[in-house]
Amino acid sequence: MSKMRRSERIVRLTQILLEQPHRVLSLTEMADKLSSAKSSLSEDLAIIREVMEAEGLGTLETQAGAAGGVRYVPGYRRDLGLRFIEGISETLTDGDRILPGGFLYMSDVLGLPEVLDTAGKLFASRFRESGADYVVTVETKGIPLAVATARFLNVPMVVVRRDHKVTEGSAVSINYVSGSRRIQTMSLSRRSLPQGTKVLLIDDFMKAGGTSKAVIDLMHEFHVDVVGIGVFIDTAEPQNKIVKEYLSLATLQEVDEETRQVKVVPGTYFEEDASEGGR
Amino acid sequence: MSKMRRSERIVRLTQILLEQPHRVLSLTEMADKLSSAKSSLSEDLAIIREVMEAEGLGTLETQAGAAGGVRYVPGYRRDLGLRFIEGISETLTDGDRILPGGFLYMSDVLGLPEVLDTAGKLFASRFRESGADYVVTVETKGIPLAVATARFLNVPMVVVRRDHKVTEGSAVSINYVSGSRRIQTMSLSRRSLPQGTKVLLIDDFMKAGGTSKAVIDLMHEFHVDVVGIGVFIDTAEPQNKIVKEYLSLATLQEVDEETRQVKVVPGTYFEEDASEGGR
Repeated sequence: MSKMRRSERIVRLTQILLEQPHRVLSLTEMADKLSSAKSSLSEDLAIIREVMEAEGLGTLETQAGAAGGVRYVPGYRRDLGLRFIEGISETLTDGDRILPGGFLYMSDVLGLPEVLDTAGKLFASRFRESGADYVVTVETKGIPLAVATARFLNVPMVVVRRDHKVTEGSAVSINYVSGSRRIQTMSLSRRSLPQGTKVLLIDDFMKAGGTSKAVIDLMHEFHVDVVGIGVFIDTAEPQNKIVKEYLSLATLQEVDEETRQVKVVPGTYFEEDASEGGR
Repeated sequence: MSKMRRSERIVRLTQILLEQPHRVLSLTEMADKLSSAKSSLSEDLAIIREVMEAEGLGTLETQAGAAGGVRYVPGYRRDLGLRFIEGISETLTDGDRILPGGFLYMSDVLGLPEVLDTAGKLFASRFRESGADYVVTVETKGIPLAVATARFLNVPMVVVRRDHKVTEGSAVSINYVSGSRRIQTMSLSRRSLPQGTKVLLIDDFMKAGGTSKAVIDLMHEFHVDVVGIGVFIDTAEPQNKIVKEYLSLATLQEVDEETRQVKVVPGTYFEEDASEGGR
């Protein structure tokens, strides 16, 4: 029976930890919940940590003492991430995806749970030390990625709107010039972000970086710092982006409407010397 | 060592299953991956299933035979769900949330990972037999809920846009009359949904049901069936919604701009006789 009990505890502990990334869970409370001694719990947690680290799933951080706790910090193996993005790149490298104007259809890919989960884990893993209190995105296509990233960082997610909505209350709005040289608006509810906090910006796409720059400007209005930027896909051109420090999971190198050629390669996230937020 | 190995296998199995809800995983492949006999694996899975069922976390469905597999079907205990929604209702019952026009600010709540995860599990649990191939939502505020629900059902998520975007390719657009009696547009990329499929509609809010009705009409254009509707919060008035069959997690009973009174109660999801999709 003792063996059974350990197995059962391990199922429950693994589940509790995986479902609450980055939350410090009290050892005392968990021992109560599982009706077991803290010493047994510590042994269980050591086993779980060992497997997680061996599999590259992240790690457990334990805090000793009376107020001792344990926290699951999600990770993702670079080689598995790279293989995953290579698969996505192959999916996107399809002439049938080319839309009038040289745009690439990728809404389907950004709606797949596996893609969102993996992208979320990759961003959460790389930005785990960023100190971000929130994940911020701009409607619409970046929202699913922001939700996934916020889930694995266990922080709230905030959506910047394209215009001011009655359901958002008083808002701060700014105008900016987009890549297509049109004047655009961004608006964010005053209540959404407290002063002095830090945010991680997650978006689906970056061309020149105008939208990201506008978010940074909008955040200044809230006295909020952007501590990192992650995008699903950026474009190789223009090489000189308005925003210098960001990570992309994939890079769109070529979309040729005439020859129906598309070329997508792994992004700056996977560059050997890429550090947090650095290109 | 044998005891250790079982514990380690159980960590890995629990993680693999929890991260891929509703996916049939081959026992042969898992046995290979974990370098263990299928018979040991079966014992491990029995332990995991027992804990999941005892905790109300869902269940494991196993298929016997050479092509045998196992699938994690997420569940959520009704009493825990109800307690959770009671907490949310209390959060929302705050006069400071009242916006001009009698709207209630709830964007913050809809950005919390715990809220999204729980709502997603509740919907995925209730609609697990719906046969939905996709989760559909309308931009913007329903997207995070749709992402969470799609994750626990392991189906792709599709976003209906408010207008036709160049990045969506050719689209089907419809006009409809919203609750505020304005003519509105909805647009969905032709490529997004194959004919003959089934969708679950998830949204943040329902007043008269005009938006849901419009989605149903739009789905008809795609020859797609709406097999269920779930909203985070509906309004008590009007009682007679355009859409009859839907589930709400919470119900907004009163927003009084003058007295600053708000009243939110658990929704139709928690009615004793509420069956799948029924009000």
